[in-house]
Amino acid sequence: MAGNTFGQVFRVTTWGESHGTAIGATIDGCPPGIPLSPEDIQADMDRRRPGTGGAASPRKEPDKVEILSGVFEGYTTGTPLTLIIYNKDAHSKSYSHLKDIFRPGHGDFSYLMKYGIRDHRGGGRASARETAARVAAGAVARKLLAFHEIDVLAYTLSLGGIDAEKLELSDIQENRLFCPDNEAAARMEERIEEVKKQGDSLGGIVGIIADRCPAGLGEPVFNKLDADLAGALMSIGAVKGVEIGAGFAAARMTGSENNDELTPQGFRSNNSGGILAGISNGDPIMARVAVKPIPSIAKPQQTVNMENEPVEIKIGGRHDISAIPRIIPVCEAMVCLTLADHLLRQRAQGWIDEFEEADEEDEHGE
Amino acid sequence: MAGNTFGQVFRVTTWGESHGTAIGATIDGCPPGIPLSPEDIQADMDRRRPGTGGAASPRKEPDKVEILSGVFEGYTTGTPLTLIIYNKDAHSKSYSHLKDIFRPGHGDFSYLMKYGIRDHRGGGRASARETAARVAAGAVARKLLAFHEIDVLAYTLSLGGIDAEKLELSDIQENRLFCPDNEAAARMEERIEEVKKQGDSLGGIVGIIADRCPAGLGEPVFNKLDADLAGALMSIGAVKGVEIGAGFAAARMTGSENNDELTPQGFRSNNSGGILAGISNGDPIMARVAVKPIPSIAKPQQTVNMENEPVEIKIGGRHDISAIPRIIPVCEAMVCLTLADHLLRQRAQGWIDEFEEADEEDEHGE
Amino acid sequence: MAGNTFGQVFRVTTWGESHGTAIGATIDGCPPGIPLSPEDIQADMDRRRPGTGGAASPRKEPDKVEILSGVFEGYTTGTPLTLIIYNKDAHSKSYSHLKDIFRPGHGDFSYLMKYGIRDHRGGGRASARETAARVAAGAVARKLLAFHEIDVLAYTLSLGGIDAEKLELSDIQENRLFCPDNEAAARMEERIEEVKKQGDSLGGIVGIIADRCPAGLGEPVFNKLDADLAGALMSIGAVKGVEIGAGFAAARMTGSENNDELTPQGFRSNNSGGILAGISNGDPIMARVAVKPIPSIAKPQQTVNMENEPVEIKIGGRHDISAIPRIIPVCEAMVCLTLADHLLRQRAQGWIDEFEEADEEDEHGE
Amino acid sequence: MAGNTFGQVFRVTTWGESHGTAIGATIDGCPPGIPLSPEDIQADMDRRRPGTGGAASPRKEPDKVEILSGVFEGYTTGTPLTLIIYNKDAHSKSYSHLKDIFRPGHGDFSYLMKYGIRDHRGGGRASARETAARVAAGAVARKLLAFHEIDVLAYTLSLGGIDAEKLELSDIQENRLFCPDNEAAARMEERIEEVKKQGDSLGGIVGIIADRCPAGLGEPVFNKLDADLAGALMSIGAVKGVEIGAGFAAARMTGSENNDELTPQGFRSNNSGGILAGISNGDPIMARVAVKPIPSIAKPQQTVNMENEPVEIKIGGRHDISAIPRIIPVCEAMVCLTLADHLLRQRAQGWIDEFEEADEEDEHGE
Repeated sequence: MAGNTFGQVFRVTTWGESHGTAIGATIDGCPPGIPLSPEDIQADMDRRRPGTGGAASPRKEPDKVEILSGVFEGYTTGTPLTLIIYNKDAHSKSYSHLKDIFRPGHGDFSYLMKYGIRDHRGGGRASARETAARVAAGAVARKLLAFHEIDVLAYTLSLGGIDAEKLELSDIQENRLFCPDNEAAARMEERIEEVKKQGDSLGGIVGIIADRCPAGLGEPVFNKLDADLAGALMSIGAVKGVEIGAGFAAARMTGSENNDELTPQGFRSNNSGGILAGISNGDPIMARVAVKPIPSIAKPQQTVNMENEPVEIKIGGRHDISAIPRIIPVCEAMVCLTLADHLLRQRAQGWIDEFEEADEEDEHGE
Repeated sequence: MAGNTFGQVFRVTTWGESHGTAIGATIDGCPPGIPLSPEDIQADMDRRRPGTGGAASPRKEPDKVEILSGVFEGYTTGTPLTLIIYNKDAHSKSYSHLKDIFRPGHGDFSYLMKYGIRDHRGGGRASARETAARVAAGAVARKLLAFHEIDVLAYTLSLGGIDAEKLELSDIQENRLFCPDNEAAARMEERIEEVKKQGDSLGGIVGIIADRCPAGLGEPVFNKLDADLAGALMSIGAVKGVEIGAGFAAARMTGSENNDELTPQGFRSNNSGGILAGISNGDPIMARVAVKPIPSIAKPQQTVNMENEPVEIKIGGRHDISAIPRIIPVCEAMVCLTLADHLLRQRAQGWIDEFEEADEEDEHGE
Repeated sequence: MAGNTFGQVFRVTTWGESHGTAIGATIDGCPPGIPLSPEDIQADMDRRRPGTGGAASPRKEPDKVEILSGVFEGYTTGTPLTLIIYNKDAHSKSYSHLKDIFRPGHGDFSYLMKYGIRDHRGGGRASARETAARVAAGAVARKLLAFHEIDVLAYTLSLGGIDAEKLELSDIQENRLFCPDNEAAARMEERIEEVKKQGDSLGGIVGIIADRCPAGLGEPVFNKLDADLAGALMSIGAVKGVEIGAGFAAARMTGSENNDELTPQGFRSNNSGGILAGISNGDPIMARVAVKPIPSIAKPQQTVNMENEPVEIKIGGRHDISAIPRIIPVCEAMVCLTLADHLLRQRAQGWIDEFEEADEEDEHGE
Repeated sequence: MAGNTFGQVFRVTTWGESHGTAIGATIDGCPPGIPLSPEDIQADMDRRRPGTGGAASPRKEPDKVEILSGVFEGYTTGTPLTLIIYNKDAHSKSYSHLKDIFRPGHGDFSYLMKYGIRDHRGGGRASARETAARVAAGAVARKLLAFHEIDVLAYTLSLGGIDAEKLELSDIQENRLFCPDNEAAARMEERIEEVKKQGDSLGGIVGIIADRCPAGLGEPVFNKLDADLAGALMSIGAVKGVEIGAGFAAARMTGSENNDELTPQGFRSNNSGGILAGISNGDPIMARVAVKPIPSIAKPQQTVNMENEPVEIKIGGRHDISAIPRIIPVCEAMVCLTLADHLLRQRAQGWIDEFEEADEEDEHGE
């Protein structure tokens, strides 16, 4: 059943295959009156583009976004926005030898089990290319968050077993891996080069912070803000784990260690990651995601073909060594989409006193 | 906006406050023809009940479930099921001294920020008591999964810093902590006693396995099976992290280490946790969740009252030392609900050949 | 698939069978801060109760509503409201002779085709009794609409072929049929008596007006306000037709006759029924619904049993002659639920200037 | 809040403005394995195209549909389908004189009230052009219905006050108005010519029949099949009324007249329109919709501008005299979309015996 739509009020549907005509996103539920141009979207797209960052493949795609609907004279109109990115540099032929083979770590097998049919070209719908549409939609959400001065930033905390040892936000823009520790970033780059020669790939950990998120977002009980963030982040293909605040470390703490005490000046710590009982508490929202290594590797691997016969596979072609750093704007996009949706959800359902105030405004305003 | 409903086809809405008249769950979308009695539900309820397991408080609640609708002559009818659990042993007065104070680690502050009003009695809607309704609904989902012989089991992997060192499923029923390592369980119990004396509490890690889940469940791209599981599990109040398969360990592997090679006999390993590209691959589904320590502790803590004045708080009363093991049936329930929903979603949208077969059956069957 | 929930933001799920333990409604998405007591709901319940109006059966049900959750100290808390009405006066045995027979005009046959099982007692879920839960939920929606001074009123326009010849709103409270024409109401009562003697039943037409609905409600394109109203009203069992504004009469007009011209003082006419292009225009919202005759009649009818053998059926027992007037509060409830949902939907998505204003308020207010 | 998506399982989102770059539809939830080419869609598009039928304007649009995603080697893959129709013959300038004026009978005023901004060019999103995307999506739904041999057909029952006096299905393809009465069609054409000279426009009534719809579709209680059909049809801009089966005529019948008696050979009549208690009963589904006259007329009308000053307006340009017959494939599309959705919903939730059979098949089939 339909699973390509994200959000309840700010609703995004992505569509398109890696080697089809185009990929895109349709946003239904974006409020009117937001200034929006393709340029607003392009900056995020460029960060996700192949060829960015040391771990990236050399595939060249301009990933230029066009807005097909929903904007009039530079402003959103409240009607659906459709963002489209035409596929240009798609070498379908380089995948034809894989059409009868299940690549380890990919969705080839599970897609066939589910659908009885699959578009094998470059992973089809399961390709990381799909995330370009998320980034485009996320850029629109970011414009909405900007009205509340909410800022969403992701960065590399670990790559190939090398951890950032500090969280220096200014470093993030200074290295190609968006790592908040320039020295660690340099060692990560070395690790990438080493593994590239081995025909292998690397996983890592991405950290995400959402700053100035107002208190009160999140809908108990199933749409807690952390639940929706976890679902959003885990929906990114390469992600295998999500933590909020102290995450798995909290499992080894006592209550007195983990509880964030309150003072008249605010919370004393942020083990909760800015979310209490599923509702934002005004502190920065902090999350971490585990990114698995890119499954496409040149090293020989054992697998089977569609006749269930054993075959050896070496995956050539243009592949990244790690989903990091290209996954970083994707993580940001999913957090932006989640927060934008919850902002609008909370607008729908504020405390009734606000109703009365709103009424008075209406009387004067209309 | 409405956030108390889980699922797309098998839809569960829970309702009720810790110290209100009753809590319950309404299930809309349960297929007809499933044999169902209150007894089917009670077994799971009893595992979640206070007083179960070494870490539990002595609060006595029979948590007897009644079925108000949707069952006729012992079978589900396809109409909504309403399950109700009346609140019996609710000592509201013992909470009245907390009504103007924000308890650290609880939702008191964030609820007030969101709603401008809160039911302070025992946490109201944010109470772990809400999960009793999830367990009741999960038991119905489990009956549906039984038609496919899918089995969902959760267990304690770590508690208070003590890890299970083996995964012996037979041990799980032999100790009060549902730990797959009887010896570790004994040490965990000691740790609980120690911390209880200190007026503190403990976190831990729960593992979950879903066996015999057919390949093909999960809806790309946003409703991937792992995404929906992550959202489902993170929606449990105490959960701060979720891993699927190798999880955060995958972040430190290479592709050749992490990829699960295929052989004619099946997958050689299960780092994917039974889910590839968001779709189940037929292998056991494996997840782990981080459970934070119970925030209600007897140790003195700093906090503020509603006038933002600093106050010291000691939380007495009947509180568990750890959400484990009572959270275990809740984790199972959320996985059962997720799988039941995806089973029905996949029924809605199978490969079109099945349509034709279905048609032929209809001709004969009707 | 789950079909017992209405609304997108103000979401109501009804549950329960005519002769089960109870029926009820769970509302997820009601804003906090609305004063609410069972008495607020009871007035509407009493208008729907059996024994009200000349066309009603003598079945005695107090239909007393209890609120199980979501209200604290007299105000809604933003958490789910559950409203319950226990079934008291249910004579299941009087239906047992019908359990193998398909009653003409009832859902007996289609329910069995759909579910393969059915609760035959009094129509089970298909009973008009289900609408008691709608009326209860609608009363909560009405409280929300009251903050905007929106007023929803339904009345009898036609019954048994006798039409109201005027629309005198003051008459509505003066006769048992809620007809805006006292004289027509008297003739309708005579017609009811006449048909009752014949063991037959009557249909009619209900008119509905929603006054002071602000302009701007309704979501193009599929959730136009008129589309959602039509779906809402047609979901009432006995309804077979819905008109908005001029309705079918518009089909015989020219554009110059049908268009509502604008003047500086407002619209010159209201053929649109207060809805233009699916969005309310500030004029009264006007709808009409066709109500079919009660299918349970004492007159002998031909039908078949579950072995597809012809049988004659005479339906005795306590049955209304017409769904009017008891359907009137049900129609109001569905309109209240639709408008409440759209009010909140519009709050979620107002023009972005309001965002900025809201921001400023937040700064001062928090 | 987002209102541009239709359906629960077979979900269609339409997007695009009359004079933007393109309009289109994204279908999420179409099963895999359906043979689909642009040609399959084009036939329905051509019936909706401007210039078709006597009442149509001469605007020339090829309305050629392209499939951007979701089809691989001629079959649907289970991933989202995006259908796009580029806008070619859009004369935006001819609308610029209308940008400050509210056209009577159009959404100009209500859109501005709702959004605070509007795309005035040709009605923007409120244009009938949006329905081209519905027809494209409906053609895909029709392919799905074909697997069940369900046939959906709409036709003109009344136009400009002239009624079809017979329902001769073979006539429908023989006249430009798709009227089941060739003689009535001829008189309707005369009426169109007459009114065209007067600078006015006409309304009418469309009938719809869905043949061979299996029993069991429709989800009590709010998503009854008739409720969803009514909402679907009323969501077409020009529709102001919907009837199912006997419709408003049922309001004037007695129960013994209206009830459809059952015989071993089937129902004796079809006043129910093939739907009992919201669930299809296997008889043809019959509906009728009231279509208001085209609001754009050359005759002078009174209105106001954005400064609320009175102005006279004459709407020139290329406008149809009646939405009929171009609305006919749109009505069919909405019925196809509704039935396709309910077919899949019912697949999700069939009787549990089918589960067991399905299991056995799986064992052999996989």
